Amino acid sequence: MTDIFSISTNELVAKMREGHISSVEVCKKYISRIDKFEKDVKAWNFLDKKILLEKAEEADDYRKSGKPLGSLHGLPIAVKDIFGTYDMPTECGTVFRKKMSASQDSEVVNLLKNAGAIIMGKTVTAELAYIHPGKTTNPHDHSRTPGGSSSGSAAAIASQMAPLSIGSQTGGSIIRPASYCGVVGYKPSYGLISRNGALKTSEKLDTVGVFGRSVEDVALLAKALIKKDLYDSSTVHFAADNMLAECKKGPIFEPKFIFYKTDKWKNIHKDSRDAFDFFIKKFKKNIEVFDTPSYFKDIPKYHQIIHETDLANNFQAYYRKDKKKLSKEMRDAIGRGLKHSAYDYANAIDFMQQSYESYKEVFEDYHGVITPSASGVADKGLKSTGSADFQKVWTYLGLPTISLPLLTGENNLPLGVQLIGDKLDDLRFLGTANWLEKNCKDDE
Amino acid sequence: MTDIFSISTNELVAKMREGHISSVEVCKKYISRIDKFEKDVKAWNFLDKKILLEKAEEADDYRKSGKPLGSLHGLPIAVKDIFGTYDMPTECGTVFRKKMSASQDSEVVNLLKNAGAIIMGKTVTAELAYIHPGKTTNPHDHSRTPGGSSSGSAAAIASQMAPLSIGSQTGGSIIRPASYCGVVGYKPSYGLISRNGALKTSEKLDTVGVFGRSVEDVALLAKALIKKDLYDSSTVHFAADNMLAECKKGPIFEPKFIFYKTDKWKNIHKDSRDAFDFFIKKFKKNIEVFDTPSYFKDIPKYHQIIHETDLANNFQAYYRKDKKKLSKEMRDAIGRGLKHSAYDYANAIDFMQQSYESYKEVFEDYHGVITPSASGVADKGLKSTGSADFQKVWTYLGLPTISLPLLTGENNLPLGVQLIGDKLDDLRFLGTANWLEKNCKDDE
Repeated sequence: MTDIFSISTNELVAKMREGHISSVEVCKKYISRIDKFEKDVKAWNFLDKKILLEKAEEADDYRKSGKPLGSLHGLPIAVKDIFGTYDMPTECGTVFRKKMSASQDSEVVNLLKNAGAIIMGKTVTAELAYIHPGKTTNPHDHSRTPGGSSSGSAAAIASQMAPLSIGSQTGGSIIRPASYCGVVGYKPSYGLISRNGALKTSEKLDTVGVFGRSVEDVALLAKALIKKDLYDSSTVHFAADNMLAECKKGPIFEPKFIFYKTDKWKNIHKDSRDAFDFFIKKFKKNIEVFDTPSYFKDIPKYHQIIHETDLANNFQAYYRKDKKKLSKEMRDAIGRGLKHSAYDYANAIDFMQQSYESYKEVFEDYHGVITPSASGVADKGLKSTGSADFQKVWTYLGLPTISLPLLTGENNLPLGVQLIGDKLDDLRFLGTANWLEKNCKDDE
Repeated sequence: MTDIFSISTNELVAKMREGHISSVEVCKKYISRIDKFEKDVKAWNFLDKKILLEKAEEADDYRKSGKPLGSLHGLPIAVKDIFGTYDMPTECGTVFRKKMSASQDSEVVNLLKNAGAIIMGKTVTAELAYIHPGKTTNPHDHSRTPGGSSSGSAAAIASQMAPLSIGSQTGGSIIRPASYCGVVGYKPSYGLISRNGALKTSEKLDTVGVFGRSVEDVALLAKALIKKDLYDSSTVHFAADNMLAECKKGPIFEPKFIFYKTDKWKNIHKDSRDAFDFFIKKFKKNIEVFDTPSYFKDIPKYHQIIHETDLANNFQAYYRKDKKKLSKEMRDAIGRGLKHSAYDYANAIDFMQQSYESYKEVFEDYHGVITPSASGVADKGLKSTGSADFQKVWTYLGLPTISLPLLTGENNLPLGVQLIGDKLDDLRFLGTANWLEKNCKDDE
């Protein structure tokens, strides 16, 4: 009998396709994990085991019919509770949407179903995909935050309650929970995955991404989601067919990286800094340590102006209806959002393109940029999801970024390494990430 | 000897290509018009006759070499003085740029040169392509405004000092001068023509367009300018190869139009209203008169918020350096621009897409929408370029629009009919415009 937790999701999907293991068997194994861990991890906002097994049975029947199968056939996948599902609640972490479901599936859910995946359930999100935490705990230490806002999606992978999951990032909502929970989190380039039918928090910043346990596993999932969508005008035509193949192939030459310690370095715990210094030394042939460009210092401010203004615009109805039902963090953000000037906002939007134009030359000489995924390991306590300092610059620039669970920091907790690539260069980028992952593990 | 002023520009280009008339002969004829009319019309900010004839000679020599020729080979074309030219001044209608030229050609100028066209000179623009008038007068009555901001480009066509010209529209800067001067002015869909190297006034509104004496002539010119440009991220991939052919072919079925009198109808002079009523009656088989959708009433406000905020952002350096060198109109606009809230600005940007999504269904049932191009004929006096009320909604929506000189209003002055089409449906749109132009003239 296959131990599904010791093989990759790529292998698992192949085994299901070949009939070595059924979708029902796979789902039962994940249910047994959920039975064991969910009471402490609290990753799920909605999950119906009976419905899940019914869908798995349907998937198995379909497979036996001999019809062509999608790339994720029979695989259960967890979805952040901001993506519309018509047959499950879509509560977006706010009491305003308690027990409400969407009128139709979001495009991401639609594409998952088209690929044969089974939507397991909906994972906990911070309130309206911002910063006020949901109930989820860190699987490595239940007294610590899992990070947010894609808290449940990262925690479900870490505790192996799901093989793959969907998240989203506007500030640092994929990379930070991936780092804190010790899983792979991949935020593709802005414009690759449709936000149609998902909660809109910021048009220019919202980015859909994925979680898994390896680079090749997240590539498998992302490939199925990349598609131009006329209903999300940010999406571009992009040939993702070779995403998994390019990811497996990796770079042709030994890659070269820039490492930024950034001006936040001194705030990182010494054990974590030591871990990164060890990492830099280990890849000394490949890594050059640089300071961040001077114009990076304005980006957090610009990011904040855009983010808060857009929150104010998108959640004005809730704010006007009954602002006490919003968290203090959200109320304060909307309050600030209402005060920003159009002048500053327009300037912040303009600088997105300008700063990318200045920055992109880095990728002529380097395969990627590496930084800590977050300012250390998961913080103690569940009142905050941590700081987005190390993530928001890359969201603002629209660059692909991935957190790899390659290091261990203080208290033996996971510590992510963040790799950043050039915009819309995601195929080559995932190949480079795969190289980094494999070369780090091989030496161990 | 060909009378070049009695044939279309399409015919003129063909005759030049076949060697029936040389570029030097053509340019000399336009120079003789300039010698006669420029002293009153004042359409040009820069024009060097000697250089023009040298370029024409070069074009003739090139043609004789037998090498393949571009679609505009040897044709002199006038360019609004906001498009960068490295070998002519680019003053943008402001003393801040007196005698300055650009470091390189704008993409539009580059494409014109690639197509074999000769840049005749630079035409007068309102200050920084906003509303404070330049020196140009209306060729039909020198005591009246030519409209703006593309004042010189429209007036040069009306007085036949140039066969074709380039303009731009952020509010109503192509359609209004075309209407006032009695020429064809075509503002393509947002995103068809690159603004790279042109004065930036508003990223979301600035649109490049063209002037000529017929729909087929503006199609000839527009076709040469439509090209995806990586340096203007608003541009899209668009197959314009058949633009002229589709324009000539026209609609397969008898077209159906909506006519909006709009809530500004009562402000139009009775003679002009009578002319439009005559037009509606003439096309009664094709036209249905409707009220504008209710959400149109918010659009002028949204347009203003975006436009003024962007002016404040783009011209902050001039404003700070010496605001007295800016016109009162510009100072006031920037002053208001500095005060808009980010909340309103973001909302105004969001509504661009939303309102288009609501509006587009109109084009499922109708070939186009027709309105007056402007609120009557050209106003008396040169202190204002007129009102943008009838134009700015369509700029905001990003729809293709064309002003056709089909009617005559009070004082026997030209009165434009504005046709509006669906976004990125410019090929079919120009065919419909051609049909309207031909069917209006045929009956006369």
